[in-house]
Amino acid sequence: MTKSEKSVIRARDLGISFDGKPGPFNAITDVTGVEVGFTTLIEGEGDLVIGKGPVRTGVTVIHPRGKDRTFEPVWAGRFSLNGNGEMTGLLWIDEGGAFSGPIAITNTHSIGMAHHGLLKWLIHHPQFNHEKQLWMLPVAAETCDEYLNDINGQHVSEQHVLEACDAATPGPVTEGNVGGGTGMICYEFKGGTGTASRRCTINGETFTVGVLVQANFGTRNDLNIRGVPVGRHLTENTLWKTRTHSEAQGSIIAIAITDAPLLPIQTQRIARRIGLGVARTGTPSENGSGDIFLAVSTGNDVRDNGQEMGTIVRYVTNLDPLFLATVEATEEAIINALVAADTMTGQSGHTVYAIDHDQLAEAMKRYGRLNNKIK
Amino acid sequence: MTKSEKSVIRARDLGISFDGKPGPFNAITDVTGVEVGFTTLIEGEGDLVIGKGPVRTGVTVIHPRGKDRTFEPVWAGRFSLNGNGEMTGLLWIDEGGAFSGPIAITNTHSIGMAHHGLLKWLIHHPQFNHEKQLWMLPVAAETCDEYLNDINGQHVSEQHVLEACDAATPGPVTEGNVGGGTGMICYEFKGGTGTASRRCTINGETFTVGVLVQANFGTRNDLNIRGVPVGRHLTENTLWKTRTHSEAQGSIIAIAITDAPLLPIQTQRIARRIGLGVARTGTPSENGSGDIFLAVSTGNDVRDNGQEMGTIVRYVTNLDPLFLATVEATEEAIINALVAADTMTGQSGHTVYAIDHDQLAEAMKRYGRLNNKIK
Amino acid sequence: MTKSEKSVIRARDLGISFDGKPGPFNAITDVTGVEVGFTTLIEGEGDLVIGKGPVRTGVTVIHPRGKDRTFEPVWAGRFSLNGNGEMTGLLWIDEGGAFSGPIAITNTHSIGMAHHGLLKWLIHHPQFNHEKQLWMLPVAAETCDEYLNDINGQHVSEQHVLEACDAATPGPVTEGNVGGGTGMICYEFKGGTGTASRRCTINGETFTVGVLVQANFGTRNDLNIRGVPVGRHLTENTLWKTRTHSEAQGSIIAIAITDAPLLPIQTQRIARRIGLGVARTGTPSENGSGDIFLAVSTGNDVRDNGQEMGTIVRYVTNLDPLFLATVEATEEAIINALVAADTMTGQSGHTVYAIDHDQLAEAMKRYGRLNNKIK
Amino acid sequence: MTKSEKSVIRARDLGISFDGKPGPFNAITDVTGVEVGFTTLIEGEGDLVIGKGPVRTGVTVIHPRGKDRTFEPVWAGRFSLNGNGEMTGLLWIDEGGAFSGPIAITNTHSIGMAHHGLLKWLIHHPQFNHEKQLWMLPVAAETCDEYLNDINGQHVSEQHVLEACDAATPGPVTEGNVGGGTGMICYEFKGGTGTASRRCTINGETFTVGVLVQANFGTRNDLNIRGVPVGRHLTENTLWKTRTHSEAQGSIIAIAITDAPLLPIQTQRIARRIGLGVARTGTPSENGSGDIFLAVSTGNDVRDNGQEMGTIVRYVTNLDPLFLATVEATEEAIINALVAADTMTGQSGHTVYAIDHDQLAEAMKRYGRLNNKIK
Repeated sequence: MTKSEKSVIRARDLGISFDGKPGPFNAITDVTGVEVGFTTLIEGEGDLVIGKGPVRTGVTVIHPRGKDRTFEPVWAGRFSLNGNGEMTGLLWIDEGGAFSGPIAITNTHSIGMAHHGLLKWLIHHPQFNHEKQLWMLPVAAETCDEYLNDINGQHVSEQHVLEACDAATPGPVTEGNVGGGTGMICYEFKGGTGTASRRCTINGETFTVGVLVQANFGTRNDLNIRGVPVGRHLTENTLWKTRTHSEAQGSIIAIAITDAPLLPIQTQRIARRIGLGVARTGTPSENGSGDIFLAVSTGNDVRDNGQEMGTIVRYVTNLDPLFLATVEATEEAIINALVAADTMTGQSGHTVYAIDHDQLAEAMKRYGRLNNKIK
Repeated sequence: MTKSEKSVIRARDLGISFDGKPGPFNAITDVTGVEVGFTTLIEGEGDLVIGKGPVRTGVTVIHPRGKDRTFEPVWAGRFSLNGNGEMTGLLWIDEGGAFSGPIAITNTHSIGMAHHGLLKWLIHHPQFNHEKQLWMLPVAAETCDEYLNDINGQHVSEQHVLEACDAATPGPVTEGNVGGGTGMICYEFKGGTGTASRRCTINGETFTVGVLVQANFGTRNDLNIRGVPVGRHLTENTLWKTRTHSEAQGSIIAIAITDAPLLPIQTQRIARRIGLGVARTGTPSENGSGDIFLAVSTGNDVRDNGQEMGTIVRYVTNLDPLFLATVEATEEAIINALVAADTMTGQSGHTVYAIDHDQLAEAMKRYGRLNNKIK
Repeated sequence: MTKSEKSVIRARDLGISFDGKPGPFNAITDVTGVEVGFTTLIEGEGDLVIGKGPVRTGVTVIHPRGKDRTFEPVWAGRFSLNGNGEMTGLLWIDEGGAFSGPIAITNTHSIGMAHHGLLKWLIHHPQFNHEKQLWMLPVAAETCDEYLNDINGQHVSEQHVLEACDAATPGPVTEGNVGGGTGMICYEFKGGTGTASRRCTINGETFTVGVLVQANFGTRNDLNIRGVPVGRHLTENTLWKTRTHSEAQGSIIAIAITDAPLLPIQTQRIARRIGLGVARTGTPSENGSGDIFLAVSTGNDVRDNGQEMGTIVRYVTNLDPLFLATVEATEEAIINALVAADTMTGQSGHTVYAIDHDQLAEAMKRYGRLNNKIK
Repeated sequence: MTKSEKSVIRARDLGISFDGKPGPFNAITDVTGVEVGFTTLIEGEGDLVIGKGPVRTGVTVIHPRGKDRTFEPVWAGRFSLNGNGEMTGLLWIDEGGAFSGPIAITNTHSIGMAHHGLLKWLIHHPQFNHEKQLWMLPVAAETCDEYLNDINGQHVSEQHVLEACDAATPGPVTEGNVGGGTGMICYEFKGGTGTASRRCTINGETFTVGVLVQANFGTRNDLNIRGVPVGRHLTENTLWKTRTHSEAQGSIIAIAITDAPLLPIQTQRIARRIGLGVARTGTPSENGSGDIFLAVSTGNDVRDNGQEMGTIVRYVTNLDPLFLATVEATEEAIINALVAADTMTGQSGHTVYAIDHDQLAEAMKRYGRLNNKIK
């Protein structure tokens, strides 16, 4: 299977079935307005020279309302399942329940530059209003790619962030070794960027929940896909025994966006469900992991920090369909990241192998979990 | 000055001035719908016999929307400045931002019975609907009156709670040694129940914030009233040196209710301001103190746990006037509790002295703080 | 299979295999010192008359250090996955990271009496010291049994709580329709009390994590056991369609205790892992559910609220083995509750059916998940 | 009084007295090991041209254990009184209770560069160990200087951050218009950097609490100094009426460091006391303010993320002396910032006036609060 073929394959293409009903792209962009862009940096080979490379990293940008409505706040809430990581902007999200501007996801040591670049992009946005945007508190998050990437070279530049902001589009989303997900590792397989979505109906109205993950977590033995203990069967090319330390590493950043009208406090509840989707893939959320989740609702026009009285909003009172949609979309987004990622060799010749599609299908089949054979 | 005269005196009556504009009762009941009731238990004298007395305790009940609208939820948020105490109902307040039913405040070892009694009252309420009220999570809070009261006798009964629920009325609120505040101590003076309110205007609409405190905290030396270090001047009859242990004790429960329309996440912000009002009276919030605050908004009709879609609410976007109102009302409610409370002798002959009104006025005058003399 | 036979059957007896290594009882009591006691109340049949019955409820009591060391605090942390419920004592657990005394679990409308009874038991404990135990903040939690039990009759009395406190023992723990779990429902099967434990080794020392759940949550369709979508195969006798409202109900209280020495902040991390164990059984944690978790460490002597300086403690720095143990023990405890519970008919003739052991085994087998057949 | 004279004047020099006993420098550096460094950027005059200036900003760096022990973690906790701002590193501080490396404080739109620069400094530190420091999560915080500074020019560079890191020293700390505090405004007077410390004794051991603030908050009318309503007397040169919007702005970042041995959960409690010190200066903590506090304990050697078992720590069990010390040091640090800051003219000719020392002394005197005249 060639690289270009592989990169378009998603978990469902292998015959793995999931619960729930996805949107047309089965991606975070199924939520109207959402745009996603990437800058992918792959340069150099061989030994690590800090500041020279090799470079295996990038930036992922998500515009919750699209580039043109970037100054319109969205309501949001977060949950840190295991806070060994960073996501900026959370203090006002906790307090005011809102943020505006794009979200960036990159590597751990480029998060400062991602934050800096997001602000640069906002300041030079055609709608930037010096009187109204007195200060902004961008959301930038990270996972660690030090096994493949010269992370201490801090290779992501302001320009790379601006490019990812500008590159964002609606429609299908590239998965695997792309953007911030370029150098990531998941269950000791090559990980990276993944996405999925679910549609649900509440009192006759249809809403979408879209999830995008930067998947960089997990120990092989724990990997569970749709109930199948895949990690115990696909035991080749595990990683941690070859590392200079024994502790498992990793993180997952997940962003859920919905067009359902939610109050800020309700988005926090959605964020907690992301953790349940992660749990379905088997991990106990490891000590060294930054498992940090943001949930966003675009379903209301939001006044943030403002002067006006009498703002009117509506909200869903039974969140169960959204909870289930979030769990299911998160689970599938992670598996999509695993399936889409290609084997990569990075700094110092470190190689991380992609999950083998045939072996995966075989394991699923063994447990009656391929193409939903058991009914 | 006789006891009955004293009990109607409030801080302003002594010539102490406060900032901001109170409502007509300068009480939590200035918020339309709020009703407050008390059961006060004062029985026996002499040595402590657990289960026999002496008894110096009670129950305070607050109905945020009144007795007749008790099953209509209110939005609420909380803040624990120092969580050495108990307030039930907080998990759903944190999660759903709401509660319904009355609030009870009593002593630490009667909180179970307060919770039990609130449920009993709700279950026998004429509007109780077995199909709709499948479960209820009442709000009961406490401070510790063990210095004056046979707290381990658990003298508050189900009946006492029902009586306080039924006794609640709008209008002026009794302060001092009443209800849950009966046996309380504040800055080593007799403490207890206090209340105050403030009015403010946002975009042309007038809103009220009312605060009720059960004040049972503080070390004499820290007491500060309107900037005057009163505790360093009024040094008679301090308490802790006579106790069997050296650590300062105490707690403050404060309930703020406003008719301003707020989102749940915004009520949490109001709750944090209660702590700033407490700080104005001088305490650093002590290790052994349960300084627990609840903020309630009655300004929206709330659907809690429901099925409907499309509920419409509005909210204030600039909370500064409400923040200031909360700080000011909290500060005055505490001073009102101190001024209203009478000297009390309780279990084992323990006596806690009321703050002396003349000495207090004298100290305020010395710093130019009586009747706002300095301008 | 007769009732008495059934009640001793656990998930492993059916051939269901789990990960990790349990302690000798595969119960929370595998942690040295832990004692568990129950009061089970089953009285009456037929139509509901509030205050008369039928009664299907009870009280579960856990002594983390045993009855004789009840006044020695333990360090603890909590996590509320979906806070539609109550657990008292959490404010000081959040602030001071500690509590002392037993933990009680009962039904939602008896939580006040459980709290009251715990205090009564402590006050009459032979070691109760009026000078030192100035106030206590007991931990009482609940789930809702209104479908089977006359919950509004508040049938749990002070005496029932005292009996459960006194009845507690180390050793094997009864599961199913017992104690607070008597009237509970799980995934629309009869639920109730379940327990399990795991052992793990950190730097050569062996530690135990024990979990006890009161399982009362979940929608049938979501039930997943060891990766098998059991709820989609065992579709008889579902409940919610017969109820007077359409919304799924339920809650889970879970208590994890470990002898590993942990700091308070670390116990919070353990508590979050309980949620991941719950997620393995399939639920998205529903809107109406009180999914509330407490994690306790008995591995240090704790000074709480005290005066001394120089207290020495130790702590584990890599929590991964404990995280995995907690997830695994929680998962198994829930399945044990399901397997142990017997069919019950309660108020108004409502019947909740136990999961059929044969059908369950058949479903597991179908997916190659019985006796670990697939390797 | 000339500028150079003024800049060495502190609140006590004016005859204002404070409670408690400071350390020798009355500064955060009274805690052994703490080093503080600044980069101050003052360039250009006249109209604002984004990217050109005028520039009135800088970077403040605090090394909790000094530059040479930067990779040794400290235990820490935080409190966000009003989270309209940013402090990075908080997720692991919340979860693991620890961080390592220096703390930077700068302006809102340079926080990304501050984060980036801190990492650069750490990566090039002589003790940097690529095997052990796989990833770092630096603490960078901000307040907004847009009224005086070309904040959107993002003038703080990586080099400026490195310089502040290297410039740090123990000993006296410069206050006022310095480092991150350069362009800040406090109660509509010129604000900026301030510091103070307190000593206290617990069980015979003496501990120090040091506080450093970047004070950029408050409305004139609210300013209260040692109980005197200074803001109502010193009413010249107020600011907000001249701004393009009516809402008050501002923030305060405060860092408290103590050598008292505290558990992580206890540092959170210290952080909450910072808010009470802020409250003593009069503010209700405004809607637009980022009032974010970090408390650090250097009193234990910390293992963070590690492998070892059996780490031994000790902790204080009665925090009251530390609580009071924190409140008092915070209060004085803010007043020191106000007293030390000089009048500044910045972008577009905006001028912010320093508080007039003579007028301040006069107001204090009027209320008997100068040199503690009233006893």
